Amino acid sequence: MPRFDPNFTDNVINSMGPKTTPRFRQLMTGLIRHVHDFARENELTVDEWMAGVKLLNWAGQMSDDKRNEGQLVCDVIGLESLVDEITYTLANEAPDAPTATAILGPFFRADTPYRDNGANIVLTPPPDGEMAFMHGQVVDFATKEPLVGATVEVWQASTNGLYEQQDPKQEEFNLRGKFKTDEQGRYSFYCLRPTPYPVPDDGPAGKLLELMDRHPFRPAHIHIIATYDGYKPLTTQIFDSKDKYLTNDSVFAVKDSLIVDFVPRKDDPQAGLELNYDVKLVRAPAN
Amino acid sequence: MPRFDPNFTDNVINSMGPKTTPRFRQLMTGLIRHVHDFARENELTVDEWMAGVKLLNWAGQMSDDKRNEGQLVCDVIGLESLVDEITYTLANEAPDAPTATAILGPFFRADTPYRDNGANIVLTPPPDGEMAFMHGQVVDFATKEPLVGATVEVWQASTNGLYEQQDPKQEEFNLRGKFKTDEQGRYSFYCLRPTPYPVPDDGPAGKLLELMDRHPFRPAHIHIIATYDGYKPLTTQIFDSKDKYLTNDSVFAVKDSLIVDFVPRKDDPQAGLELNYDVKLVRAPAN
Repeated sequence: MPRFDPNFTDNVINSMGPKTTPRFRQLMTGLIRHVHDFARENELTVDEWMAGVKLLNWAGQMSDDKRNEGQLVCDVIGLESLVDEITYTLANEAPDAPTATAILGPFFRADTPYRDNGANIVLTPPPDGEMAFMHGQVVDFATKEPLVGATVEVWQASTNGLYEQQDPKQEEFNLRGKFKTDEQGRYSFYCLRPTPYPVPDDGPAGKLLELMDRHPFRPAHIHIIATYDGYKPLTTQIFDSKDKYLTNDSVFAVKDSLIVDFVPRKDDPQAGLELNYDVKLVRAPAN
Repeated sequence: MPRFDPNFTDNVINSMGPKTTPRFRQLMTGLIRHVHDFARENELTVDEWMAGVKLLNWAGQMSDDKRNEGQLVCDVIGLESLVDEITYTLANEAPDAPTATAILGPFFRADTPYRDNGANIVLTPPPDGEMAFMHGQVVDFATKEPLVGATVEVWQASTNGLYEQQDPKQEEFNLRGKFKTDEQGRYSFYCLRPTPYPVPDDGPAGKLLELMDRHPFRPAHIHIIATYDGYKPLTTQIFDSKDKYLTNDSVFAVKDSLIVDFVPRKDDPQAGLELNYDVKLVRAPAN
């Protein structure tokens, strides 16, 4: 005889009525099955479940327009990075799907201004910032031909771990900009060498990290979107190969292919470091 | 080649440090594996995940001293009833485990007063209430011998669906009481025929019910705890066999063995209904 009612989970799933949409029915069926299996396999007690309920309620109570603690709780167990990967995969398989824009992350700004190649996006220089010159070429993945007039958009946090819209001390559009590639398909700008920063750890996500004996740091990174008519847009983050959190990102966003080297730059009074990063775009299927 | 990184979930699990407790490591390992499997199997998109995050944050924002919406969200997917069943099973297997007291539910009060057999627990009679006389015998499960001086404790909601501590219009300890069995092992009291009530449906739990095309009603029930020295305590709910929500409890707490019949009672000016409910207690193993 099974220790727990073998029909219970099916009864809960079958309680859904006929007006449930097919997708919602699918998601709730999968969610209920996994949550119940988790509880049975681990013999979750009422006290343990209630501790989880309290933690989730606390996440909601901490959340407001400026902070999404429920999201952060998901991030520290890898869920945001995983749904990012899934959504990218679906977008690649069906590039016209509307989900393709969902993976920009919370700090993207659609109204970021264009700047000239060679411009400096560090409008509010932090005293502890290291300047870097970032440049590269946007090319067709298959033919290696340069793509002239492609758009490269970037954004990064300052050395205090804050993006400009989180930090009243940073000038608007600090550390972000859009660039058009020149006749050789080249873009370039001055930016900060990105620096690691901790995710906020004064709430339930921080409590989970503590209980899992983990640190809250994210490795340094720069966000990039590259677009060109007729090509699949590329949305990505690049990570500094020297970063100590590269192999233990608290939100699990690092992929090997996204690790880049900052190298010393000579004879440039504006920057002691340089990063060469070429972008390869894949032609979109004709509609 | 797999569509999604096959090492991702193990990487997240293996990020836990050595100071994690064994039980927390077990629970987080199971939780992360099931949440990730759920996301991959159903190809959960960023937009769908974010809708879930918003719903959970909303639950926390609605919760306070008087309302636990995170708990209710779990209830409507059967999780509370399931962890109840698990906790009961563990308590039966190891009756001295501290979890045995966790399954009393949110409306139990440890300071409920003793009343004489035959007393009326309806201190604040609702105009639409039906009075019932509930009585029975507490016996040894094996020998059928009556247990003299056993404690039977009961509590129930009023016809508005509220327990006395939720409703300032009900007298303190309304619809609850403790009784000692007499020399025949008998207990008795007057109470209300319990009535069905909806769980609060103005928040995320209600939204989930709506999206799953389900109603919010719970079938009518009375909570009971019976205890006697040297015997395993019994904590349970009994359900009215005439209730229309018996087969579709919104929180999935009904078990067949807990369904009881209210029958007409003659020649009693205090009650038109009667319920005979005997309690069988199992001797606890000697320590």
